[in-house]
Amino acid sequence: MANYYLGVDMGGTLIKIAIVDSKANIIEEDFIDTDITAKPKDVIKNITEVFKKFKNYSKVNSIGFGIAGDINFKDGIVRYSPNIPKWNKVPLKKEIEQITNKPVFIDNDANTAAIGAYWLDIKATVDNMICVTLGTGVGGGIIINKKLFRGNNGTAGEIGHITIEPNGRKCNCGNNGCAETYIGAKHIVKETVDLLNSSNKSKYILNLANDNIKQITPKILAQAAKKGDFIAKQVWNNAGKKLGILLADIINFFNPDAIVLCGGISNAGNLIITPAKEEIKKRAFKTSAKSCKIVVSKYTSKLGVVGAAMLVKSL
Amino acid sequence: MANYYLGVDMGGTLIKIAIVDSKANIIEEDFIDTDITAKPKDVIKNITEVFKKFKNYSKVNSIGFGIAGDINFKDGIVRYSPNIPKWNKVPLKKEIEQITNKPVFIDNDANTAAIGAYWLDIKATVDNMICVTLGTGVGGGIIINKKLFRGNNGTAGEIGHITIEPNGRKCNCGNNGCAETYIGAKHIVKETVDLLNSSNKSKYILNLANDNIKQITPKILAQAAKKGDFIAKQVWNNAGKKLGILLADIINFFNPDAIVLCGGISNAGNLIITPAKEEIKKRAFKTSAKSCKIVVSKYTSKLGVVGAAMLVKSL
Repeated sequence: MANYYLGVDMGGTLIKIAIVDSKANIIEEDFIDTDITAKPKDVIKNITEVFKKFKNYSKVNSIGFGIAGDINFKDGIVRYSPNIPKWNKVPLKKEIEQITNKPVFIDNDANTAAIGAYWLDIKATVDNMICVTLGTGVGGGIIINKKLFRGNNGTAGEIGHITIEPNGRKCNCGNNGCAETYIGAKHIVKETVDLLNSSNKSKYILNLANDNIKQITPKILAQAAKKGDFIAKQVWNNAGKKLGILLADIINFFNPDAIVLCGGISNAGNLIITPAKEEIKKRAFKTSAKSCKIVVSKYTSKLGVVGAAMLVKSL
Repeated sequence: MANYYLGVDMGGTLIKIAIVDSKANIIEEDFIDTDITAKPKDVIKNITEVFKKFKNYSKVNSIGFGIAGDINFKDGIVRYSPNIPKWNKVPLKKEIEQITNKPVFIDNDANTAAIGAYWLDIKATVDNMICVTLGTGVGGGIIINKKLFRGNNGTAGEIGHITIEPNGRKCNCGNNGCAETYIGAKHIVKETVDLLNSSNKSKYILNLANDNIKQITPKILAQAAKKGDFIAKQVWNNAGKKLGILLADIINFFNPDAIVLCGGISNAGNLIITPAKEEIKKRAFKTSAKSCKIVVSKYTSKLGVVGAAMLVKSL
């Protein structure tokens, strides 16, 4: 009998559900809207009804969940999720196990993304990998000896909160100069607005944003930069250099086999990767930098659901 | 029969040799001077003659070596050692195995120090530990799941080359602002000399150094600071803050169970640890910082030899 694994990626908008095989190939998938006003019990019911519609559900060995927020991995409890605030102290593992009679594992979305990247982008061909999620915030996950590394209390991989400018921008975490304050989407957009306010060198950004600075997104900044917009190019170049400092730190400290970049900001591709690689060249040990494969994920939208399914293989 | 392990710490001045038991307690120890002019073959002969004098040598299961420099751990070859320049491409493992008929392991001294700290300071009671060696340079070693983590090509743990000031001091490695350029002994002394040249606020440093700035050492700086010397206190405070940035980075990224500080600079104790801890409080995640034990090694002079002996248990 085939070994299949079911994964659930609980986002603030969509709940993605998929069955994968032992090589992380998606066999079946579906999604439902996230009802953030519903009771957790009802959401859980809706999710497990999707399970039952899958043709291969009976072949599923285990179920994994990935959720943003404060997750008690060991006991399988969602302590708090910013995307779905009603989910407070939900014993998700226990409830799903009672309904399905299958082993259930839950983890935060940075960890499931790392596992997804390990299987989809790296095809599980290396031992040690770092995943850097470049989204609104900057998260990360650490794979060591093919398994997820959680550290002492499950917070290992908080890559966005490595200091890269000791007297730099104030971060929500309380620190100054965290990587996130330079390469997180929110801060990239804010830097753009500041530059637009003090310069008239942008040709395209406001145009693409319908003349409304509130509509500026990283996607618009990437489009503008590709058209040659001076400010957009400058913003990506700045962010890329900061990303390079961060990656050089990781390479020197951890000497990984591979680094995978995922999340919305990684879609900027070479706009951010080229200056990052230049900075790595200046800052990282040559042999370590050379041996470290740097990959932009081709599967950002699938990482969460596939990683949740493969969570059981990363324990 | 007892399980004993033999370790050799090859320094530029002394070669320390010890037999330890399975809990890393030293059973017998000895040392010889390092003859940096002698041929490696002759040095090897002298070392193995010390082995034979040990009463418990017959009970030794394996032999480990720790040496500064570029070590090919896998094949057991000393590619290059800055302390003993004649040791160039020495197949140490093979040669010692031929003489002793026991399995031999060799590694660089930052890794053996980390293993030594894991057994002596931490008593092997945690899973994940970082060792930071604060000497002329700043090195490090990573213990994951009770084993040494080497990374892709053996350079994992280059903690001294994490960037803490992106536009900071030039480092020998080519980067700017490496931690080593702020907390390495050489740079701490240089900062002192610069401050002495531009200020007359020091009461004790030159006195303790026989009025010769070339005689200033970290030890003298610690003595002067303890007497209340303004500049010495400032230098330790600066170094401590930089150390704190580095340790906060490690805590946020790696969420270790423990960090052990060793090496000459760590002897400054609270002069450097107190400002470091203040900086960690500002910069690191609270739960991760709280759960991470920070220890100043009590065994700096024994870490290398004990770690070399225990190398076999960290594979």
